[in-house]
Amino acid sequence: VENQGYNEDRTVSLAGVIAAANRVAGIVTRTPLLPVASGEGRLWIKCESLQIGGAFKLRGAYNRLAQIGAAGKAAGVVAFSSGNHAQGVARAAKMLGMPAAIVMPADAPAVKMDATRALGAEIILYDRHTESREAIAAALAQERGAVLVPSFDDVDVIEGQGTAGLEIAEQLGHAPARVVTPCGGGGLAAGLALALPDTEIVVAEPEGWDDMGRSLALGRIVEVPADAPFTSCDALQTKRVADLTFATLQAAGARGVWASEAEVHTAMRYAFGLGLVVEPGGAVALAAWLAGKLLPIAGDTVIIGSGSNVDPAAYAAVLGGKA
Amino acid sequence: VENQGYNEDRTVSLAGVIAAANRVAGIVTRTPLLPVASGEGRLWIKCESLQIGGAFKLRGAYNRLAQIGAAGKAAGVVAFSSGNHAQGVARAAKMLGMPAAIVMPADAPAVKMDATRALGAEIILYDRHTESREAIAAALAQERGAVLVPSFDDVDVIEGQGTAGLEIAEQLGHAPARVVTPCGGGGLAAGLALALPDTEIVVAEPEGWDDMGRSLALGRIVEVPADAPFTSCDALQTKRVADLTFATLQAAGARGVWASEAEVHTAMRYAFGLGLVVEPGGAVALAAWLAGKLLPIAGDTVIIGSGSNVDPAAYAAVLGGKA
Repeated sequence: VENQGYNEDRTVSLAGVIAAANRVAGIVTRTPLLPVASGEGRLWIKCESLQIGGAFKLRGAYNRLAQIGAAGKAAGVVAFSSGNHAQGVARAAKMLGMPAAIVMPADAPAVKMDATRALGAEIILYDRHTESREAIAAALAQERGAVLVPSFDDVDVIEGQGTAGLEIAEQLGHAPARVVTPCGGGGLAAGLALALPDTEIVVAEPEGWDDMGRSLALGRIVEVPADAPFTSCDALQTKRVADLTFATLQAAGARGVWASEAEVHTAMRYAFGLGLVVEPGGAVALAAWLAGKLLPIAGDTVIIGSGSNVDPAAYAAVLGGKA
Repeated sequence: VENQGYNEDRTVSLAGVIAAANRVAGIVTRTPLLPVASGEGRLWIKCESLQIGGAFKLRGAYNRLAQIGAAGKAAGVVAFSSGNHAQGVARAAKMLGMPAAIVMPADAPAVKMDATRALGAEIILYDRHTESREAIAAALAQERGAVLVPSFDDVDVIEGQGTAGLEIAEQLGHAPARVVTPCGGGGLAAGLALALPDTEIVVAEPEGWDDMGRSLALGRIVEVPADAPFTSCDALQTKRVADLTFATLQAAGARGVWASEAEVHTAMRYAFGLGLVVEPGGAVALAAWLAGKLLPIAGDTVIIGSGSNVDPAAYAAVLGGKA
């Protein structure tokens, strides 16, 4: 089964994001663009933390799965992730009535397995010390004729994430001067760059995990070093970005900033004060802004709060200043 | 100084709510109406928890203060409250460039005093064991020729809170079948009843503090008994509702439900899972709904999440199941 009508020759485009917006309309939540009091220019938070499933991921997953034809629909989809992407794929599959298999580490938190199972997905466990999830997922997809849905290295996934950018422009009534977005593999950031071609795109990453920012500065992809420090931003622990996301952001003239653990936690507490639960990886753009790592500009700055899926105990520790 | 052009003879009306909406347009946040997955009918949360100041109170306070004439503006306003209403009055006064004095108990949390001071308000402390805040505030208002702004027993305050109801109808495209709202003195609930005359209004209160619900059932105002149990819903600890809020809700055919401490905490954890910080008093309507205290109906149910101002340590304890 040859990828079920998916055109691999096509690359990402603004037209693709617009088409994606038509696909996800009425499916994903049009998330709030919340004004934040600010001395310099106007500041907004785009609350993808309030998206269905608690993160922006449903946008890309639904946009990809909705384009699978009748034959592929029966075979279903495969994804590997213990996080927000797996949830997005499982939910989109449920909405579209197709089977989903999610490859997860055997030691993944029970709460994440339960949530994925509750969405009707089959869970395939692997030993993360001895097995490769990529290989397992690829073999499974091959065997079943199922579509493997990458979390960011995919035209339709990127274009789907970009629908958040179209919403921002609609909600503001114009494109913002600047968007600051959390960045793991760069799917959301690249999508935003496509959706908002006249907007300055700034990607925010955790300290030591700022491979996209360094790659953009160097003009070539560099990986996260093996000795990268601990980060609580589990949603952003991508070792290497994709050629596609990198090239898209490079073409857009994007640049990177990073935030420390302490700055991320300060941002989570700041968001709490606004009434928003934001997970560590979802707060890194706000963290960079609060830490003064962005020069003031005229016009609207939009900060993406990309997810809210955080363990209650971990969140409580951050609120108490114990994390 | 005779109440600065305020027409005490006028009573509450839908027209008044519409006029209030024009006054607060561009001042208050048009808060999100967030869809919530639900088996029965369509369920939405109106996120006044994301309002400026973390609660709906700015609506009523701004609507009242904006109608104070030039002479009264110089004399300013007085309010008594250690909570969300004081913040709303202080913020509205700052926006309108008038002095505000807030009467607070001497043992109020430092964080609340600091927040009120940061809004430029003067803080007048009193001993809650030996002094009456009502008397102190009234004397202060008299002495200064300032306007005393009640937290719910006021035509303009009620009509200002009602603007949230107009927003709901605009956001849905039609009036909802039912609104469930937290209720302390009934200012917000009465405002919603005016704004949505064809909607079933349900007021939700903490267990033992369900005086509005009991008053509506009895057809006359009853007070909260002196031996009412502890409630963490500090925003809803009103001993007696006002004739005006009661009469408005009675005329609308409103009825009451209540939720226990445990149900309120369950609702706070549920909202956390959606990415929303909601304070105990702000979660009581959601609590009643989750606990199955409302019969299913066809059409849209809107639950008001009325505030997010909760101490981080108290919130962390609720998340950990320790409160």
